[in-house]
Amino acid sequence: MAWYQTTFRLPPFRRGFHVITHLIEANAPDIQRFKIGLAHIFLHHTSASLTLNENADPTVRVDFESHFNQMVPENAAYYRHNYEGSDDMPAHLKASLLGSFLTIPITAGRLNLGTWQGVYLCEHRDHGGSRTVTVTLQGE
Amino acid sequence: MAWYQTTFRLPPFRRGFHVITHLIEANAPDIQRFKIGLAHIFLHHTSASLTLNENADPTVRVDFESHFNQMVPENAAYYRHNYEGSDDMPAHLKASLLGSFLTIPITAGRLNLGTWQGVYLCEHRDHGGSRTVTVTLQGE
Amino acid sequence: MAWYQTTFRLPPFRRGFHVITHLIEANAPDIQRFKIGLAHIFLHHTSASLTLNENADPTVRVDFESHFNQMVPENAAYYRHNYEGSDDMPAHLKASLLGSFLTIPITAGRLNLGTWQGVYLCEHRDHGGSRTVTVTLQGE
Repeated sequence: MAWYQTTFRLPPFRRGFHVITHLIEANAPDIQRFKIGLAHIFLHHTSASLTLNENADPTVRVDFESHFNQMVPENAAYYRHNYEGSDDMPAHLKASLLGSFLTIPITAGRLNLGTWQGVYLCEHRDHGGSRTVTVTLQGE
Repeated sequence: MAWYQTTFRLPPFRRGFHVITHLIEANAPDIQRFKIGLAHIFLHHTSASLTLNENADPTVRVDFESHFNQMVPENAAYYRHNYEGSDDMPAHLKASLLGSFLTIPITAGRLNLGTWQGVYLCEHRDHGGSRTVTVTLQGE
Repeated sequence: MAWYQTTFRLPPFRRGFHVITHLIEANAPDIQRFKIGLAHIFLHHTSASLTLNENADPTVRVDFESHFNQMVPENAAYYRHNYEGSDDMPAHLKASLLGSFLTIPITAGRLNLGTWQGVYLCEHRDHGGSRTVTVTLQGE
């Protein structure tokens, strides 16, 4: 039984949806120490988010960006929080719709994802910059 | 302190929202070994999802299907990922809106859900087939 | 290595989005016992939810209420579950879009949130009353 926790920064990503599974694994190599466990991935931000989705065809990520822009539009007449740019309030809403954390099973030293599942960083700002992540590992 | 992890397949469900609390409990009987703990339920797919909601009146699940079809329509003009059927890209979007995993407290050997809370399998494909779940239990 | 679990009731909140980080910390003081760990916060309800978002400017919470009312309207023609009031079925949908639980890293005895992150109670009913929360802490 052991706990590991590490905090690191991702490189800046442009607005959109990006597969970052390899960056999580590279920054949390202790995953391989666990026979059974859980990996908790936490994003310390309110205008970007994390989700799991299709890791292969990049058109899926393009459609995510299109759909979330449609579902959570910029410049809605009812927004009051509009002094940080037209991308800011939609970014907050998208972040809560998708969520700030993931918990993924660890099995035999690996993230036990489905064949088609990848970790997405969802960057909702036009210029979000580098984002900070904390990974907490536990298991046996 | 102990860890249990089990992977199993659900029976195929038709498109829609289905209460599966009893199937989780039946496939993870070790829940009853824990005085205090957490149950992590993980779905290995990108076109179905898990959520917690009302376990009694079936009209709630019917309305979930209606509303998600309205909020995430098929055949949106902006979809680029459209070669796997008109239900595919909406299924990916719905899966991320609802999420792929749940973590539920265990108290006195039982899932400590609210009176009205049940685990929903949200099947977003027309023919999703059997879905794979991993349950990871930990506690004392 | 230790586990703590506590269940408590929040004061009633009016419909809308409310920062309750301080109430979580006040009701789960054992957070400070952990050098590294995880705090799991679970809401036992299907018409209210939890999310993480901006903790400073109250207009963000006002815009959350406006946007979710737009995205999940009352009295949609397709609702069948309409005998508990016009705010009820939208409350169920909003609850699943936002989620019933949060897992937050603990670092050096504190919830390791980003500078701008706060825990929101999202009260989706007009008269939701007092809501029950279970916090489960684990770590070392």
